Parts: sequence; C-alpha cells; structure tokens
Amino acid sequence: MNEPIGIFDSGIGGLTVFREMRRQLPGEDLIYLGDTARVPYGTKSAETVTRYSQQNVRFLLQQGVKLVVVACNTASAFALEKLQKEFSIPIIGVIHAGVKRVLQASATQRIGIIGTEGTIRSESYTQEILRQAPSAQVFSQACPLFVPLVEEGWQDTAVAQATAETYLAPLRGKIDTLILGCTHYPLLKKVIGQVLGPEVQLIDSAEETAKEVKGLVIPSQKTTSAADRFFVSDSTERFMKVAKVFLKDFGQAEKVEL
Amino acid sequence: MNEPIGIFDSGIGGLTVFREMRRQLPGEDLIYLGDTARVPYGTKSAETVTRYSQQNVRFLLQQGVKLVVVACNTASAFALEKLQKEFSIPIIGVIHAGVKRVLQASATQRIGIIGTEGTIRSESYTQEILRQAPSAQVFSQACPLFVPLVEEGWQDTAVAQATAETYLAPLRGKIDTLILGCTHYPLLKKVIGQVLGPEVQLIDSAEETAKEVKGLVIPSQKTTSAADRFFVSDSTERFMKVAKVFLKDFGQAEKVEL
Repeated sequence: MNEPIGIFDSGIGGLTVFREMRRQLPGEDLIYLGDTARVPYGTKSAETVTRYSQQNVRFLLQQGVKLVVVACNTASAFALEKLQKEFSIPIIGVIHAGVKRVLQASATQRIGIIGTEGTIRSESYTQEILRQAPSAQVFSQACPLFVPLVEEGWQDTAVAQATAETYLAPLRGKIDTLILGCTHYPLLKKVIGQVLGPEVQLIDSAEETAKEVKGLVIPSQKTTSAADRFFVSDSTERFMKVAKVFLKDFGQAEKVEL
Repeated sequence: MNEPIGIFDSGIGGLTVFREMRRQLPGEDLIYLGDTARVPYGTKSAETVTRYSQQNVRFLLQQGVKLVVVACNTASAFALEKLQKEFSIPIIGVIHAGVKRVLQASATQRIGIIGTEGTIRSESYTQEILRQAPSAQVFSQACPLFVPLVEEGWQDTAVAQATAETYLAPLRGKIDTLILGCTHYPLLKKVIGQVLGPEVQLIDSAEETAKEVKGLVIPSQKTTSAADRFFVSDSTERFMKVAKVFLKDFGQAEKVEL
C-alpha cells in the first residue's frame, strides 16, 4: 500500500495535524490540501462546509490517496459522517481522537471545549463526549477571534491575552481539561495556559489523530524516503508566508481549482 | 429606468454602503448580494477575488439591475477595472469616491489609509490619491483583525482598544485624515478616533459613493415605494444575526448559489 495519505483543511491550520502525521508516520507520503480560496469554514453553514469538504475529498482521490484525514475541526463536525458514507476509502476526523484523549486525561470528567462558531454550534464534541462518558459535564465556548490572531502572528501580545481572558472567563474554575478544538489553537497554548492556570490540562487532537491513522493504514513498503506535496485553492503567496508560523520547512505549494 | 440598483460585497460589511444608498436614493429599488459562502475577500489573491466578483456581477445582471456598486474595498481594489471592461452597465467602486472626499478634507495632504491585507497590498488607494494629488504623502496600514472584531460585536472593548493602538501606532502624528478603507471600519470609528485624537478626520467612502451613484443613474419613475432584496451565498442564519450590528431592520435574506 504505497499510495499517499491525504489531509485536508479549510486553510493553513491543518499543518499542525500534518506535522504530527509526518513525525509519527515517517515512511508515508503525505498530500496536504488547504482550501485557502474559501477559508474560513468556522463561520459558515453545515451545508456549505459539507459541499466544500466533498470537493476536497474528490480532489485528494484524484491524487490516488489511500486514506483521508479531515484535519479541520469544523469540517469534521459538520461533514464527516456524510463523507464516510459517500466515499469508499477510510476517512478520519479529529474529533473522535480528541475526545478519546480528553477522557483519559480528565480526572473529574469536567471538560471544556473551545472552537470556531461552527464547531461549537454543531455540538459534535459534546455529543461524542457524552456518548463515550454519559456522566461527563461539558462546557463549550466559541472563540472566533483566535484564528485571525494566530494568522496575524499575535500569539504573545496583550491583544491575545485580553482576548483569551474574555473568552475563557466562563470556563475558569469549572474544568480540569480543555480540548483545543481548532487546528490553530495549539499555537495559543501559552496564553491559554496562563489564563486557565496549570490545573487545567490542554488537549491537542493532532497527536491522537495521527496515532489513530497509524493503527489503520497498511504501512507503505517503499524504500525511498517519504515525499510530501502541498496544494492550495488560492494563490500560494500568503500560504507560504503564514505556513512558517506552523512549520519550519516544506517544499513549494501548488495552486489548484477545486 | 425603473430597474433596481445592485450592490455586492464579500459578506455583510457592504450594508454600510447599502444604508447610505437607501438614505440618499429613496426612490430606487436596491438588491444586495453578500458572498457569505466565500467571505472574507481581504486575505485572498487578486485572481480569486476577481473571479468571485465576476460571478457576483453576473448574478446581479440576472436580477435585471441597471448599475452595480462594488461595496467591498478589496473587490474594488482588485477587480473593478476588469469588471468595467467585461460588463456593459455602469459599475462603481468605493475607492474613487473615498479618495475624492479625503482630498477635499485634508489640509496637509498627509493621508492615512487602513484596510484589509488585500486592499493595502493592491496599493489602489495610494495610486488613486497620487493620480489626483501627486504631491500627497500616503501612509497605509493593513488591519486584518478589525473585521472579525466587528463581527464579534466587540467594537467597544479593551480588545478593540489594544488592537487599534497596535495597528495605528505607525500613523500617529503623521496624518490629518484617515480613509476607513473597509466597509466594516465605520463601526470602529469611536475607538479609532480615541487612538488618533480629534486632529485626524475619519473618512467613510459610503456616503460619497452613494452621491456618485446619484449623479449617474436615471432616477426611477415608479410611484410605488422602494423595495429591497437581500441575497447571500451561505445560509441566511448568521447573516441575519450579524446584520443587526449594521442595520436596524430589513426583510428576509434569500440564499443563492453563485
């Protein structure tokens, strides 16, 4: 099974998932697709996000992938089930793995979730937590400004601090674990940790998602070293610039029509 | 000429232009199109913004409009010339009118411009100012966080204050007028005014654009009162919610495919 693994995201944030996959699956070729022409998905409707996700999977299938990772939390929340029904290859979202990990980490089963408007409105995390642990208590909060903050490179500024304080105030003292339910949020770990204190453990789904994929794929038998490709739906210029916040080095991105 | 006038924007911000048009052209039917499925345009490339703008104009033409106002600054910056060449009806952007007004208002010809990444990168405002006033000095600054701040309803918060201070610091003491080069920014007038002080006059293009349109159209001869229609490319739910920040009352929005 030497075919590549596909990863798609609404834009650039899925590179946190790509990074973890690259680390845990060193022998696999990875294809990353960022739908930068239509980013963000977090403020859009279930119907629109599902339509865009279907187009993304079709593009990755044309590249001959053996499995698709939906790195975007909003797309995982709104579209995963439909994608799994429509396509015959395995399709993995980030929510299932994130929930599994938070339930291992939480002693009190008082769990916080932060994400985009779409992810929080979908209640996908809450439903999955309650499915796996019916007595858990879940506190969720949409944080729409976190993504543009990260893309501006303002993670360590007074603006990030004030924004985190506003969003996280309702969660303070209520939870022992917090799911970072958006691919951009791991880059705000420091400021989120300062606001919530060391008693709250922060859970990043990327690591657990890569583990789940590792258990599913028949490993590549190639003897050559892994090759990665990056595709985006808008021009590569801004992607290459902002990608540096997420990933130290990668090859050239290519622009495609979806 | 009883046909309606079309207005399009990348999303919701163009309602500041709609509002001014409604006020200055009470006899005209207005059709507003917000491309909410693909918002924002401000971080996207010239090529992608132009393609989306062409689709928007085509939709408005199908509705039988006699003139189109490109309410979005980014689309005006990247796509206006191409649209004017491609389509036979008059197409008006917001940049020309905004520049005309700022040159009347500025005593020192030291002019500031704030806008999205795309608008600032295009240098359209700078070029138009220098065309009309070659000796002017122009200071520009992209403010990507302002749009999500407004859409979050955080105009009067400490976060808005800290964000405005960071973005506007390089302009302080250098300018006597500032163009609010994005439809969302008039909603941040108060905090921008506090940071820059009363010696800097803030210029909002919407008013002047409506004046320009008034001079161009053959007025409607209808005797019935004006009817407005609102179209969006994503679901109407979020549009209707956020629209209240911009406009007190309007009818139901309709979802369309572009």
